[in-house]
Amino acid sequence: MSQYVYFFGEGRTDAPALDKMLLGGKGANLCEMSQLGIPVPPGIVITTDACKRYVRDNRFPTGLLEEVLVRVQQLNSATGKVFGNPDRPLLVSVRSGAPVSMPGMMDTILNLGLNSETLEGMVRSTGNERFVCDSYRRFVQMYGDVVLGMEHHDFEHILNDVKKSVGAASDTDLRAGDLREIIRQYKDLVRRITGNDFPEDVHEQLRGAIEAVFKSWNNDRANIYRRLNHISDDLGTAVTVQSMVFGNMGDTSGTGVAFTRNPSTGERKFYGEYLMNAQGEDVVAGIRTPYPIGRLGDDMPEVFGQLDEVQKKLEAHYHDMQDLEFTIQEKKLYMLQTRSGKRTGVAALRMAVEMVDEGLIDRKTALKRVDPESIPSMLAPVFDPEEKKKAIKEKRYLTRGLNAGPGAASGIVVFDSWNAQNRKIKGEKTILVRMETSPEDIAGMEAAEGILTARGGMTSHAAVVARGMNKPCIVGCSSLHVEERSGFMAVATEDGRSIIVREGESISIDGSTGEVMLGHLPTRPSEIQQVLDGLVPEETSMVAKYFKKFMSWTDEVRTLQIRTNADTPRDARIARTFGAQGIGLCRTEHMFFEGDRIAAMQEMILSDTVSAREKALEKLLPYQREDFIGIFEAMEGLPVTIRLLDPPLHEFIPHDEGHMGELAHKSGVSLEKIRVRVEALKEQNPMLGHRGCRLGVTYPEITKMQVRAILEAAVTVKKKGKSVYPEIMIPLVGHIKELRNQKELIEATAQLVMRESNTRVDYLIGTMIEVPRAAIVADEIAQEAKFFSFGTNDLTQMAMGFSRDDADKFLRDYLRLGFYERNPFQSIDQEGVGALVKMAIERGKKTRPDIKLGVCGEHGGDPTSIGFFHNAGLHYVSCSPFRVAVARAAAARAALGV
Amino acid sequence: MSQYVYFFGEGRTDAPALDKMLLGGKGANLCEMSQLGIPVPPGIVITTDACKRYVRDNRFPTGLLEEVLVRVQQLNSATGKVFGNPDRPLLVSVRSGAPVSMPGMMDTILNLGLNSETLEGMVRSTGNERFVCDSYRRFVQMYGDVVLGMEHHDFEHILNDVKKSVGAASDTDLRAGDLREIIRQYKDLVRRITGNDFPEDVHEQLRGAIEAVFKSWNNDRANIYRRLNHISDDLGTAVTVQSMVFGNMGDTSGTGVAFTRNPSTGERKFYGEYLMNAQGEDVVAGIRTPYPIGRLGDDMPEVFGQLDEVQKKLEAHYHDMQDLEFTIQEKKLYMLQTRSGKRTGVAALRMAVEMVDEGLIDRKTALKRVDPESIPSMLAPVFDPEEKKKAIKEKRYLTRGLNAGPGAASGIVVFDSWNAQNRKIKGEKTILVRMETSPEDIAGMEAAEGILTARGGMTSHAAVVARGMNKPCIVGCSSLHVEERSGFMAVATEDGRSIIVREGESISIDGSTGEVMLGHLPTRPSEIQQVLDGLVPEETSMVAKYFKKFMSWTDEVRTLQIRTNADTPRDARIARTFGAQGIGLCRTEHMFFEGDRIAAMQEMILSDTVSAREKALEKLLPYQREDFIGIFEAMEGLPVTIRLLDPPLHEFIPHDEGHMGELAHKSGVSLEKIRVRVEALKEQNPMLGHRGCRLGVTYPEITKMQVRAILEAAVTVKKKGKSVYPEIMIPLVGHIKELRNQKELIEATAQLVMRESNTRVDYLIGTMIEVPRAAIVADEIAQEAKFFSFGTNDLTQMAMGFSRDDADKFLRDYLRLGFYERNPFQSIDQEGVGALVKMAIERGKKTRPDIKLGVCGEHGGDPTSIGFFHNAGLHYVSCSPFRVAVARAAAARAALGV
Repeated sequence: MSQYVYFFGEGRTDAPALDKMLLGGKGANLCEMSQLGIPVPPGIVITTDACKRYVRDNRFPTGLLEEVLVRVQQLNSATGKVFGNPDRPLLVSVRSGAPVSMPGMMDTILNLGLNSETLEGMVRSTGNERFVCDSYRRFVQMYGDVVLGMEHHDFEHILNDVKKSVGAASDTDLRAGDLREIIRQYKDLVRRITGNDFPEDVHEQLRGAIEAVFKSWNNDRANIYRRLNHISDDLGTAVTVQSMVFGNMGDTSGTGVAFTRNPSTGERKFYGEYLMNAQGEDVVAGIRTPYPIGRLGDDMPEVFGQLDEVQKKLEAHYHDMQDLEFTIQEKKLYMLQTRSGKRTGVAALRMAVEMVDEGLIDRKTALKRVDPESIPSMLAPVFDPEEKKKAIKEKRYLTRGLNAGPGAASGIVVFDSWNAQNRKIKGEKTILVRMETSPEDIAGMEAAEGILTARGGMTSHAAVVARGMNKPCIVGCSSLHVEERSGFMAVATEDGRSIIVREGESISIDGSTGEVMLGHLPTRPSEIQQVLDGLVPEETSMVAKYFKKFMSWTDEVRTLQIRTNADTPRDARIARTFGAQGIGLCRTEHMFFEGDRIAAMQEMILSDTVSAREKALEKLLPYQREDFIGIFEAMEGLPVTIRLLDPPLHEFIPHDEGHMGELAHKSGVSLEKIRVRVEALKEQNPMLGHRGCRLGVTYPEITKMQVRAILEAAVTVKKKGKSVYPEIMIPLVGHIKELRNQKELIEATAQLVMRESNTRVDYLIGTMIEVPRAAIVADEIAQEAKFFSFGTNDLTQMAMGFSRDDADKFLRDYLRLGFYERNPFQSIDQEGVGALVKMAIERGKKTRPDIKLGVCGEHGGDPTSIGFFHNAGLHYVSCSPFRVAVARAAAARAALGV
Repeated sequence: MSQYVYFFGEGRTDAPALDKMLLGGKGANLCEMSQLGIPVPPGIVITTDACKRYVRDNRFPTGLLEEVLVRVQQLNSATGKVFGNPDRPLLVSVRSGAPVSMPGMMDTILNLGLNSETLEGMVRSTGNERFVCDSYRRFVQMYGDVVLGMEHHDFEHILNDVKKSVGAASDTDLRAGDLREIIRQYKDLVRRITGNDFPEDVHEQLRGAIEAVFKSWNNDRANIYRRLNHISDDLGTAVTVQSMVFGNMGDTSGTGVAFTRNPSTGERKFYGEYLMNAQGEDVVAGIRTPYPIGRLGDDMPEVFGQLDEVQKKLEAHYHDMQDLEFTIQEKKLYMLQTRSGKRTGVAALRMAVEMVDEGLIDRKTALKRVDPESIPSMLAPVFDPEEKKKAIKEKRYLTRGLNAGPGAASGIVVFDSWNAQNRKIKGEKTILVRMETSPEDIAGMEAAEGILTARGGMTSHAAVVARGMNKPCIVGCSSLHVEERSGFMAVATEDGRSIIVREGESISIDGSTGEVMLGHLPTRPSEIQQVLDGLVPEETSMVAKYFKKFMSWTDEVRTLQIRTNADTPRDARIARTFGAQGIGLCRTEHMFFEGDRIAAMQEMILSDTVSAREKALEKLLPYQREDFIGIFEAMEGLPVTIRLLDPPLHEFIPHDEGHMGELAHKSGVSLEKIRVRVEALKEQNPMLGHRGCRLGVTYPEITKMQVRAILEAAVTVKKKGKSVYPEIMIPLVGHIKELRNQKELIEATAQLVMRESNTRVDYLIGTMIEVPRAAIVADEIAQEAKFFSFGTNDLTQMAMGFSRDDADKFLRDYLRLGFYERNPFQSIDQEGVGALVKMAIERGKKTRPDIKLGVCGEHGGDPTSIGFFHNAGLHYVSCSPFRVAVARAAAARAALGV
């Protein structure tokens, strides 16, 4: 028979190992503190094994209750009290404690062990009737609520009625007699509702409490919490039964919460709060204002000295910042809990770097301490917190949406791309507000300071593009209605107002929180960003120094290369400041939207003949060449992967009559002809339509122009003495013959340019793997492709049959129901889409063992996905410039097996 | 050194085996005829191996020309003539002959061996100068054209000029002297164009001709033909060099073409045509009208007797109808060719059945003789051929599109679904003409006699739905412009006219040929259809009797079950008459478009709350139940697979203002609210949107209603004493949790219905495999699914990234360029999509070895795909009722390994 219960206290424990999986996080830490000689009220831990058996068999495992009985004897001797004995009654707390922290589970039960007899005994021994009666009242209420499943508010009714009848304004006004009356009524209520008396037998009380903890493992809150936090259902919870100490026994008693370092800033300074003559819940409840921990040094210097020693010991022991709970009972200090403390991103960074400097942890441990997802918030611009408070006070807080792109932005509201660009030319800052965005809005998004949409989820067009541009962005703001043509938006505020905001008024959006406010709130760039941009010298910013140091450590351990998705020299340069090692995806189509280019592009699309198309493409050639020269120069010495034209042609021409008329006027093509062409280009499912290499196959002249621009740019840059490594990437390949067709065109054109310029350029030809079929026949495709770049956005869409633009309608339900743990557009679906990626890698390598493998979908910037890609054997991931630092950190963690 | 050349003639051959792969079809048959003692002019065959080596090395294989030289000596002795000898010149023909018939290759060269000297010798020996000069002229022209690569029309110019100058009306008016002048000018032309004299050396002539045949293997026409007919590029062609015989040596000479049975009707009667004093090309050219073969019995009874004997011998030998070419030279019969004759579908059927009855072939051979694809044309209604001729004569022939659904139909032109239904109610027959069709047109397509669309390919919505309904259908008629709202269409005819056809005028369409004609052409059902429908007694139709017999043989050998896709009792009954063994796909959504149902469906979609939706669904329940009762009764004793609601909800509500207004009026819901709802339901990529089980997950009440209808119907039918086997199919599953979610709903609802009715119904729950992810995790999915039905339409769309509605834009180029051999929506892409099917089968069986496997996509009716499914191990295919017979025949062939 296995042992289910272990003892801690008196500077020791009999637990065989300080194993959180067995003892729960709380239990293990209490055992450990005890072993360290830190004053801890003695207690026992019932293991997670016992819980798992209970859950499986729906009854206590054989022998458990007997073991508990024996262990309670041990508690009696350790405390000098006796459980259930009226003369020296031992009271205990009962708490759940899972291997990982789970706030969704059972509430604590305090003061267990009180009954009619021990109550009177305790009154006698403490001489404090009110304190003891209040403790009993609380116990009956907690036990009724948590163990007996009664309604909390039924107890509150009784409490309030009695308060009213005796004229008590607050709980503390109640006298011992009042409390006895309340207890009487509570017990009546228990009898009425449950059909049984409230248990007088303290062992029955304990048994009930343990069973309630076990049952709470599968309550709804716990299940939902586990699902949301990706915690296994199989862990089970431990139960800690600990002898009570009281912080509310008078002015020499108290209780508090502390951190070994500042959890907001990371500063190495003991930090915390306490209250005298209070219990733990009073500190949290916020009725009385607690004192800063430093004051304890004045009040009780001896106790403070002891506490300070303990906190140092604990941090040194755990090699991490600790979150502590303590109680002082009549000048005696007891530690009730220690655990790794939660901290902000910046604090995590500072602590990690400083602890390495202090020799407390090594670099690898430091790398594990900073969540890569916390990095963007360190880099994002912020509102002045005072200004924000003011705005809320002035009722300028409007609504909240999904925080799709971190950072703060303020500007004039505009409802279309055109106005965003126009106002930018005039030097005005704007916020682009749309029902949802489309590729036609790209130029406007680029011009605006921030983006706000009524529709869409975290992976909608607006969200993805905005993150790529590092623009603050809020999406899925459903209380917003946007009338784009009429130039206003209507907001239903949470407090029931309906506010109309017209074009020209100012709003402020906080993309880190999703908040939308009326009016202009001043913003400032983050400290780190200011240093990276060279606006502020590095020496002046400690946090920027820490950031750089930390990032350099990531490079020491990671094996994945980090590239960036960049379409402009500016993006390329930014990415390099963040440490990008090349461009993994340069989308050529974004280049076509600017200025005169779109006109030439539209001319090409409206052309009827190859030669007319070639003429229009001829106009685009110099622009493309210049773009590529700029990018190659910005990325000097690093590889640049350029994707040939990908989106369907209809994305480049307008669809409404007004804009079609404009186009007719500008281009000299008849409106009727434009209409016919627009109609002909219309697609039912553009995602699966005439795009990618399908364009290059049907319009080889487009491929030729693009390849000429790439090669001519490479030649130009090379002639300046700079090294250049173009990688030409063919999108949407599904069949080897598509690839061959385009490859032949590329090679012929490249030969031509190299002969013309008498310059040799080394370049690679490769393909996206984004159509499921390509993954299936990757062995064939690798015959022609020197590299694979996984386009996991489209691969996800096609393999799962999810349109990213439409999936929100059901994906929300799917996540709620737990079909998928994470949004598959945010974090790759490893079992399904991931299996295709692995298949393609395996098959591709079979044909070409040295094939270069990367990913350029959104997932390339997602830490969890990066872990998967590392394990799958990719050579690099590519992500937006502002995710490069995230990806470096995530790649380091992946290499460390985190 | 391998042997490249073989001899035939004199009743023998030295070819080691009569192997078409080595000798080509023509060569092998000539060798075989020779061996059979049939009179064949002696000749030699140069093997395909020689050709393959030539193609590989771009030069003649070592030793080939020496071998040819030796073999020509053999020809000399066999004919008693000498190649190149002026006294007794041997002339030969040179022909290509690939292992499979390839009309795209080199033209025949006749009379090779003539030069200045042999010309005169032959004039002397035949005493017929004109005949010999004419032969030489033809030879020079053919050789110049085919071997020397000169322009045919340059020769024709000379010919015409000389004719004009001597006042000759036709070639036969030219005298020997004129012909000599022409030859002189021809030779001048050759010298001018090629820079060389026309070869006098007969061996040089022969070498050139052989090389031209070898080269023709890779000419454009041949390449295109091979691609179109799915012939491997690796076969190579043989070359036949055969001694010439002349049908134009006077009134006792002649030439003809014959078939051992009638190739149009299949009748067992010697059939053919001949011309006296003529060469083969004269029969084909159509300048002189040939005589029916019977007349030869009167003209030359002895030769006819010999020919009749030969034809009987050849058919008996080859066990198949033969297509023969013969020449009579001065009363002596020579056979020039025999091969299996091409035949119409009906003829193939009749011959196959009669040959089994005659003991000429066995049933398995008979099954291989009828192309399953020819069956629909046997069943389709037809125009009276005289009426069609008349229409063409009267210039009522308008244009031609893609023959998407076989059969003839006439009716009044309508341009929308509504008018088609309205006119049907009035008893009028209509043809629905649209730019393209969408699911909203289903009711109109059902009401119309035939469908004509300007857009779309063989697998467009119109084509697929029309074939499913067995409606004559023409799509992709690009010379058509349809103004649906204005109620007219404009046709650009091939002869340059522009014709406007307004609503109310009549047109006739022949879906078997793609022809569109103005006016009403009377149609009649096919003979077989009349018998199957019981309109005509079986005894009166020989062809119907043959059809039934043939189909019964298919059932003897096939192992694949054939089910049908049927949504109505009527379709189910039709499919049973064609031999369906169950329903593989009953689409419940089609049921929602009729009459009041659409109103209830729309009410459901416009509802805001679950209870309002349930109320609307309550109205649909009785309809669904009645539908299912009808289908279960029609399919008594056979399994019926019912797919739960699949299409996105927006397919059920109108999108234009007019119809939205109507709906607002009808439903009492405000137009504004309808607009908002329509807007909310809009999808960028509906194919990948909120549909399939995703609807059932977000609206469980829909699933519940449908399952209740299915089970209540099953109970009702079972209570009537009829056996019923419902199989409930969940569409668009990608994750096992989706399947589990729906399965739980289904089981709970089914339990409820069975308890209520106190009746137990055996039913299965299974899933479609149509999302690539589902194929990848099929092992998991098989834990919950009792059957898999491959939805290869959607699987193709997602795995290849092709939207069926849009792919025509590039798929045409893809097929032209040979990326895919066949349209992947017509015939499954075995390498890509097929690999997913196989993967799912393998993984599904691993979890559940007895899992039931079928396919219900369009591919289920495609013979090539059926072959693939048979080999992949499916248990059944399901196709539209009118493809069931096709599928039975194809399944039989698959079982025979054809």
